[in-house]
Formats: sequence, structure tokens, C-alpha cells
Amino acid sequence: MSGRLTIVGLGPGAAAMQTPQATAALAGATDLVGYATYLDRVPHQPGQNRHASDNRGELDRARHALSLAAAGYNVAVVSSGDPGVFAMASAVFEAMDHGDPAWRALDVVVVPGISAMLAAAARLGAPLGHDFCVLSLSDNLKPFEVALARIAAAATAGFVIALYNAVSRARPWQLGAALDALRPILPAVTPVVLATAVSRADERIEVTTLRDADPARADMRTLVLIGSAATRRIDRDDAPPWLYTPRFHVAAT
Amino acid sequence: MSGRLTIVGLGPGAAAMQTPQATAALAGATDLVGYATYLDRVPHQPGQNRHASDNRGELDRARHALSLAAAGYNVAVVSSGDPGVFAMASAVFEAMDHGDPAWRALDVVVVPGISAMLAAAARLGAPLGHDFCVLSLSDNLKPFEVALARIAAAATAGFVIALYNAVSRARPWQLGAALDALRPILPAVTPVVLATAVSRADERIEVTTLRDADPARADMRTLVLIGSAATRRIDRDDAPPWLYTPRFHVAAT
Repeated sequence: MSGRLTIVGLGPGAAAMQTPQATAALAGATDLVGYATYLDRVPHQPGQNRHASDNRGELDRARHALSLAAAGYNVAVVSSGDPGVFAMASAVFEAMDHGDPAWRALDVVVVPGISAMLAAAARLGAPLGHDFCVLSLSDNLKPFEVALARIAAAATAGFVIALYNAVSRARPWQLGAALDALRPILPAVTPVVLATAVSRADERIEVTTLRDADPARADMRTLVLIGSAATRRIDRDDAPPWLYTPRFHVAAT
Repeated sequence: MSGRLTIVGLGPGAAAMQTPQATAALAGATDLVGYATYLDRVPHQPGQNRHASDNRGELDRARHALSLAAAGYNVAVVSSGDPGVFAMASAVFEAMDHGDPAWRALDVVVVPGISAMLAAAARLGAPLGHDFCVLSLSDNLKPFEVALARIAAAATAGFVIALYNAVSRARPWQLGAALDALRPILPAVTPVVLATAVSRADERIEVTTLRDADPARADMRTLVLIGSAATRRIDRDDAPPWLYTPRFHVAAT
């Protein structure tokens, strides 16, 4: 087996946010495997095979990629953002864990990328400037009550919260339920951000508050950030506000 | 005021992990401001001024950078990893919040970078593949009991934990205290990783367990990852194990 499997993070969308390591890994692959929308972001290269799939069936896609690598191909699994944050890397290692033992001998490399939370936070200032938690709201793989309990625990302990998979067609109501669960815990003026398609042409960033946040403004490309009681807002003339979470501890009042 | 302030994340160290956006921002600056160790990673450019400082006094450094930008210079504040994660961005916005109101009109851009947690996680597989928390153990700016309470809350709620600033010369004992606080909460075999100088020539990654983790093996360049009860280890012949946290929820047993 001389194949190779590279799990590549493209970053949030802008070419300038894709690392040279990711670009080189994509250029060196014989086969690209991934969700069609992400593959479309990779320039076509003569002689390179593309295996596009829809955005479900991550485990099948992971097994397919491992099989191709085991057959001797140089396979790149393409992921948006960072492959290790609610993306393909966990599916690949899950497939390896439960699959052909020979897959453990494969040369596997994970190439990190700028995750959506880092790209969104950069647009806003420094909302992740102190302790924070990162959660997926998807209930395909986790009971929703577990997600709610974690969100409540995180807010109670003073963490800023970044939510992935906040909304999808199959999950229209969970973001609203999550915000409702936070309202008894955090001040009404706590900053909430809906950051959609960050760094892409149709980027839309809305800064609101826990009181006013409207889940209908989010879609499946939206990363949600919820401040802590310490997160501060710097208002500006003729420009959106900056948000930052101070480096020091602010005692609850 | 035609100056500009860009807060640039260099990534963890390897040039291949620095984004083209960061490289362009550094090349376009008239003035570089930052901790000397990070400035040393930026190639010298004729005519560019360098303002190096030690690794404390972040707020003074931020004020200096804002003053230079207000005087019309094109200033890049240089940060390791991602500038928004326990790095310079929060200090810059804190200085803006409490400083000259004219600073709010400055053109400020935050350029995200590959943070240490993403780079470390990539080397290990996918330990951040499900819900996780990110904390600083520094007690310069936060009482240590607040950090301990947050760590305990995060572990109890089922989050994987990434610890920044786990050890310094002034903080030799806090990492041990944090691990001790976790031992009654998490299984003894929970994976613990000490990832030091990731992506640099002297990178050292140690995978151990909560029972055996030795804080003396960490230094100020070490990112500490602590699994959840769900985090799995894939052992391999002649190679370090992979770690991943499954995408699905694993009920506590």
C-alpha cells in the first residue's frame, strides 16, 4: 500500500484564507473526495478524478476515500473550514476505527484550515478573546437535550459560545430553542452574531442581542456567536460595531 | 487619518500554514509591532520599521500600534496562531474601547490564522471532532479558581478541552492543579495530549492519559488537549496512535 490520504481544510471560502499547505495537497492528489459544493471550490486539474457526493453520508464518503488510498491512490478529502471541527476528519477516523485493520497503516495527514468561527470572529473584532465553547446544534447525531444542557452549562460557566450547524432545512427550530434556553442565564443585551457565508461574495454579518436575535435570519451557512456577560461592544459612526471579550475576568454583577 | 491597522495571525509556525492573506498584510505594512519571537518569523523587508517588545505589556503594545496607525502608518500587529484566540486582537480592541475616541474611525482588519489547537488536533487525528471548550490557564488576568470552575463545568458537560497558556515560568503548578480537578470527573484512561511547538522544527507531541499525564513535560509553547469520555484512541504499529472524538453522542456509562 503506497497510497496516501490527506484530509484538507479549504478555509471559509476566500482563496486568500486557504493555506499553501492545503493548496499543495490538493494539487498533488490523484483523487478528490468531498461534498460537491466544496469540490466546486477546487480548481480543475487535468487527470485528477473527482468523487462528489451530497452533504450526507459522511461515513460512506470516508470509507470510499480510505478504500481508494488503500488501492494506492493519493486521495484528498476536501472539507470546508477546518476538517477537524465538525467536518470530515472525525468521520475518516471513525471509519478507520471500525473498518479494515490495514487502513491503520495508511499514510494519513490532516491539513488544518481557518475554521468558520475564526473567520467570523475576525470580522467582528475579538469576540473569542477569552474562554469559549464550540458546539454543533445538529441532532442527527446527538439528542437535542444534550446540546441544550451543554449550552446552558457553557453560558453559566462564563464561556462565549460558537454554534455550528445551527440551522438546516431539517432543523428549523433548534436555534430558537437554544436562544430561549440562554435567555434566563445571560443578560438580554448579550451580543449575538449571525455570520453567514463569511469571506464569500454573499457574506452577511448581523450583530444583535440575545433579546432581539431572530433565528429566521440564519441558514445552513450561518455560524452563530453568543457572547458572555463580559463581551463588550464598541459602537462606531458609519460602521458596524466591534465586539471583543476582554482578556481579563469580569466578575458577574 | 489614513493609517491602517491589521492584526495578523501567522499560524503555528510552519510557513506552509500561513495564509496568503497574512503574507500580503505583512508585506504591505510600513510598521510591524509584536513580541520579538513572533517578529523574528517575518522576513525582513527594506524600509519596514519593526517595533519589537517582550511578551508582556500587551495593552501598551496595542496602544502603540493604534497610535502609529492614527499617525498615518500602515501597521501590522503580529500574532502567533490566530490573533483572536488568547492573542493580540482582544488587547487591541480593549485599548480602542478605553482610548482616544478617534481610534474607532481607524481602518482595522483582523486576519485570522491557524490556531495552535487546530494545528495540534490535525497532528493527532480529530480530537476536536465534537463539542469542545477552549480555555486559558493564565491567572494574570483571571482568578485561578474561575479557570478551575470552568474546566470542571466543561468536563462534566462532556466537552473536550483545549488549554492555552497551560504553563509558564510564573505558573509552574496550575496545569497539575487543573489535571487534579479533572481526575474525579473523567475516566483515568481519558486521552491527554501535550503538543509543544507544533509544526516547528522542535515539535514534540506526547499522547498520554489523565492518570499518567505529567505537567513537567509541558512548557510555555505547549497546547494541552484533554479528551472527553467519548474520545477514542486508534493504536497503530510503529506509529503514534490516532485520537478522534466521534461526531455522534456517546452516552456516559
